[in-house]
Formats: sequence, C-alpha cells, structure tokens
Amino acid sequence: MRQIVLTVSYDGTHYAGYQIQKNARTIQAVLESTLRRILKEKVRLSAASRTDAGVHALEHITAFKSGATISCVALMRALNSLLPQDIVVRKAAEKPPSFRVRDAAALKQYRYTIRHHPVRSPFDRFYTTFYPYPLDVAAMRKAARYLVGRKNFKSFQASDKVERSSVRTIHRLSVRQKSPYLVIDVTGSGFLYKMVRNIVGTLLEVGRGRRLPEGLPRLVSQKNRTLAGPTAPARGLCLIKVSNA
Amino acid sequence: MRQIVLTVSYDGTHYAGYQIQKNARTIQAVLESTLRRILKEKVRLSAASRTDAGVHALEHITAFKSGATISCVALMRALNSLLPQDIVVRKAAEKPPSFRVRDAAALKQYRYTIRHHPVRSPFDRFYTTFYPYPLDVAAMRKAARYLVGRKNFKSFQASDKVERSSVRTIHRLSVRQKSPYLVIDVTGSGFLYKMVRNIVGTLLEVGRGRRLPEGLPRLVSQKNRTLAGPTAPARGLCLIKVSNA
Repeated sequence: MRQIVLTVSYDGTHYAGYQIQKNARTIQAVLESTLRRILKEKVRLSAASRTDAGVHALEHITAFKSGATISCVALMRALNSLLPQDIVVRKAAEKPPSFRVRDAAALKQYRYTIRHHPVRSPFDRFYTTFYPYPLDVAAMRKAARYLVGRKNFKSFQASDKVERSSVRTIHRLSVRQKSPYLVIDVTGSGFLYKMVRNIVGTLLEVGRGRRLPEGLPRLVSQKNRTLAGPTAPARGLCLIKVSNA
Repeated sequence: MRQIVLTVSYDGTHYAGYQIQKNARTIQAVLESTLRRILKEKVRLSAASRTDAGVHALEHITAFKSGATISCVALMRALNSLLPQDIVVRKAAEKPPSFRVRDAAALKQYRYTIRHHPVRSPFDRFYTTFYPYPLDVAAMRKAARYLVGRKNFKSFQASDKVERSSVRTIHRLSVRQKSPYLVIDVTGSGFLYKMVRNIVGTLLEVGRGRRLPEGLPRLVSQKNRTLAGPTAPARGLCLIKVSNA
C-alpha cells in the first residue's frame, strides 16, 4: 500500500466543515467520494486537522493509503478536474508508510481577517468579517500578548463541545493593520473547538473599549466560557498552513 | 428635484448585467427597487455605462432625480442595509441638476484578471479566468500596442449586437504580470459590446503563439469579428472606474 498526501485549498462557505458527518456536505466527504471515483476503491482520508463549518483553508493536509498505481501528477489532475470549484488540490506527494500526517501538522497557523472599514465590499464578503466601528489596535495587541504560551483556554472553548483537556499552547498571536483589513494571525500546536473565533471575539471587545487588555489574565484563570467575548463568524477564518514543530 | 449620484460596487456573478431588462435580475433593477422601498417614490437610474452579464464593477456611477429630503449619508446607510451582499453603495453625493452622469464618465477603465498559474484557486474563482498554459507576455504587450488609439473595432464587436459606429478610442491597454495573475488594464472613451473580452481573447491567442502581434493591424483593418480571438469569460472583467476625460 502507498501513502499519498494531498495539500488542499478550499472555500468552506458551502460546507459543514472539514470532517465527515452524517447528512451534511463536508470537505472530507467530497474528497473521499471523488477519490473513490478515480481510484475505484474505497478511500479513507486522515487529516492533520479539522476545520469548522464555514471555515476556509489555504493549505490543509490530508493523507490516504491506496493500492492504486496512478502517478501523483495524474491523480492531482484528475481530482482537480472532478472536484467542485471550491475545493482544489495544490499538491499530491507519496510518503513512506511510516509517515503520520498528524506529526507533520504539529503546528497550525490560522488567520482571521476583519474588514475594518466604514463600507463593506462585495468582493471579500465570503472571506472576511465586516467591522465598521473604530478599534484600538494597540489595546488588542496588548491583550493578545497575554494569550501567548501554554495555558488552560477553557474560557475560550465552545460550551457545546468540551474536550478532556483544555490546555493548549499558542506560539504566536499577532494583530496587524493591512488597510482595509485587520489581520489576526495565530499559531499553535492545536486549538479547542471555536477557540480561535472566541479569541477574536474577545479581542474585538478589547478593541471597542468594552474590556481592558489587563483583564485577559484573569479571564484565562477563571476558566469560564461565559466571561469571554462572542464567537466571531466562521467566514473570516482560514487555516493557512500546517507544519512540523 | 435633487439629483443624487451613487458610486456602486458589485459582484456581477449572479446578475444578467447592469441594465434593466425583462425577466432577468439586473443590478439596476435591484438598485431601483431598493431605492423605491426607501424613498417611497418611483426612481429611474441613469448610469454612466452598462456592464454585461457576469461582469463586476468596483466604482460604477449611477444617478437619479428625487423629491425626497433624506440626507445622502442616511440614504447610503439605508441602501447598504437593504441591498443584497453583492451590491454596495460606496458613496452618495448630491449634484446640481445640470450635472450629467454620462459626461462624468467620459473615460472608462476596465481590468481583466487572468489567473496564470498551473493550479486554480478556490478563492479567486468568481473574479478571474483560469489559464494554466504558458504565455508570451512580451508578445501580448506588443500586440496590445497596435490597439491603442482611435480605430474601427468592428473585428472585436460582438456579432449579435451591432452598433451604428464601431469606431472607438483606446487610450491605454497594458498587460502586467502580478504573479499569480496577469492583469490587462484598458482605458477608453467607450467600448463596443464584448469588445474588451474579445480583445483579451485575442491577446491570449497571441500569448499562446497562435497569432503574431504583427497580425493585429491587419485584423483591425479587416473589420471582421470571425477573424479575432474568442470572447474571454465575463467573470475576469471588472469596471474599475469611470471618470472625466
């Protein structure tokens, strides 16, 4: 059996997330059924990471084992001609059976893009959140610094999907103005369900002056989701890249 | 009666073009019906230019006369809260009755964007044409130079909509690489139906080596649409700006 690793871009707007689930259109389900059509065998993908409903990916990684003899170039071409326009395979490469896609994805880089401008635009509406109000970006940066490191992020965990441990490590959390956008980049070893969007929602409250940056350490230590900001919309979030630590 | 001028951006993907027509969803129809809802009066827009089905606009200009007393700021806010997400009013300004929107739009700047890369992307699919083949950009530039000036563009006029005169002036026609895109900018006093897309289709044939740049003067002088290249897809075209000469 060969192992093939696919690097995949997708516009998550019309999907219920990456991971396969019953009665919903997901990226994994579309990829697996397209692979089955090409390879004439049942394929089970194992991904480096999941993304939630409506979230996009620039370079997501997913792998499968196959007995097929098709070349990677031909496979990629066949996939891109059969996949819907909102999913694209950017790379297909063979890896030894010992390769584990989860190890290759020890670091995940997400980007949240806010359209920070008085007027919305028809061209970025699927990939940004529109925020026309003034923001204190320096205060947001200050707040962000309190979230970097290994911490218990229970206050930022979606209340409907609680995991065993809510300790995670954020290596980097930056807030940049790139007019008309405000770009929030976050890199970590893994994230709780909706954690990035809850952090963004909280940073926006800081930017609006509704919450002080200095309040962040206490918010973390309280381990209580109801105290953090609202969940920012999925459409502004994109998994940029996964990589080794 | 006041005259109000709107600067409008739209994603033309889901519209049968700018201009009102029977049994089709158009930008003008949606703008007029939204204005009617807000102003409680029948509004007739007069635009600086039309755009074809599927073509986008960054700063299109359209004007109407109204007896309403609403401020321009309030009107713009009301429009943007009622319009669909793919149409945005960027500016609303009052102009004297003597102002004629067509005079303000003596120059039209269009941009055609080609994704010139071996692999497509899910994120630019509505705003670019995907072209994965090698292109001789220098040859395209050379061909473009032959089209600048006041000429009879009959060879580039859509065969299904013939206008009285097919003489038009192109002030500027540039071909730029902006990786992964190839950007074709064209400025002129006016264009025939599908003229810009027919020029792009012809330049792509030059880029592919199927046609020599030196053949362009003869192509123009032949005044025969069947001799030029195919019409490039609408989704790559955007009306960037209209302005005074």
